[in-house]
Amino acid sequence: MAETPKAENLTWHRGEIGAGDRRKAYGHRGAVLWLTGLSGSGKSTLAHRLERKLLERGCVTYVLDGDNVRHGLNADLGFAPDERKENIRRVGHVARLFADSGALVITAFISPYRADRDQIRAMLPEGDFVEIHVAADLATCEERDPKGLYAKARAGEIKGFTGIDAPYEAPETPELKVDTGSQDVDGSAGDVLAWLEERGYFDAED
Amino acid sequence: MAETPKAENLTWHRGEIGAGDRRKAYGHRGAVLWLTGLSGSGKSTLAHRLERKLLERGCVTYVLDGDNVRHGLNADLGFAPDERKENIRRVGHVARLFADSGALVITAFISPYRADRDQIRAMLPEGDFVEIHVAADLATCEERDPKGLYAKARAGEIKGFTGIDAPYEAPETPELKVDTGSQDVDGSAGDVLAWLEERGYFDAED
Repeated sequence: MAETPKAENLTWHRGEIGAGDRRKAYGHRGAVLWLTGLSGSGKSTLAHRLERKLLERGCVTYVLDGDNVRHGLNADLGFAPDERKENIRRVGHVARLFADSGALVITAFISPYRADRDQIRAMLPEGDFVEIHVAADLATCEERDPKGLYAKARAGEIKGFTGIDAPYEAPETPELKVDTGSQDVDGSAGDVLAWLEERGYFDAED
Repeated sequence: MAETPKAENLTWHRGEIGAGDRRKAYGHRGAVLWLTGLSGSGKSTLAHRLERKLLERGCVTYVLDGDNVRHGLNADLGFAPDERKENIRRVGHVARLFADSGALVITAFISPYRADRDQIRAMLPEGDFVEIHVAADLATCEERDPKGLYAKARAGEIKGFTGIDAPYEAPETPELKVDTGSQDVDGSAGDVLAWLEERGYFDAED
């Protein structure tokens, strides 16, 4: 049986649990690791590798992505501009709840608009929003085209596809930019973990 | 410094993290503890006491309630019947995400309609929805009236108030009914913890 995170000697003397209590209990701070990048840049692969490495390390973590959000919470939303905006707004709020719960939550959405991402940053406490630009150039993403979406967009079968006939607004000053064009997923995950480690995210106290 | 939940010896051999992996890492299963009851029945007090006790025990836990949901994710929703329904639908989906993440998530909403609660039960894996009737009779709740809402409802200042001029559909076969009319919050929290313990929710394996 694995070691469990039980910490039975912890006690609280306040009625309410605060961020510091959760941090002490879980051994790390809560935050949103917000991945943004083109379709095919490797967001989802990186997100799940990060989740695995964080869990192996004993962290509380979870991935929010199209798979578990679009079919549930946001099943009422399509892909029109207003609906994309509402999709990202809700994801931002759910991510905020997870970060508030003390988890290191990883989101994997193209989230092409700077204003949408900045809105989510603004609603989180300082340091809780870690914007990570998953950067591979368009040619690389289009060559990978794991879901065949670029081909469809080029053929005009999909309208408003980011990078083809809709803009991608790359972050200007992200916390971190990982090069998923030239390094493998473990290299990129290592970059993120090193960044978090250096800035004390894995410390049980501030 | 407190014991941390780090379990560095854990490794996974699959690409994806599953419910069993999370359970092993966190030392308990994920589930939704869905509190339902009249305004003033003590849902919120019980929810926060449970959260504290679960955290002290080393569990991953979080409370979803009006305070952190109504002002954020559901800030676009009012209190008309359709909006209440959408409020509960979204809370159900967010709770599902937390349970899927491996957490014991506690929700504290009146959630007066049986159909709404059953819809949430239906979207969760077997055993992940623990319906807890926070039961104090109307007279007791109205006497407590911590927010002065019953007085306003009786005066006609609030319309559609549950228990006064809107129905409360009590669960017929909840997993658990806790009597918050005659016992204190620690007694009620103890009932819930004992129920979870007996059914193996705190075991690291199925």
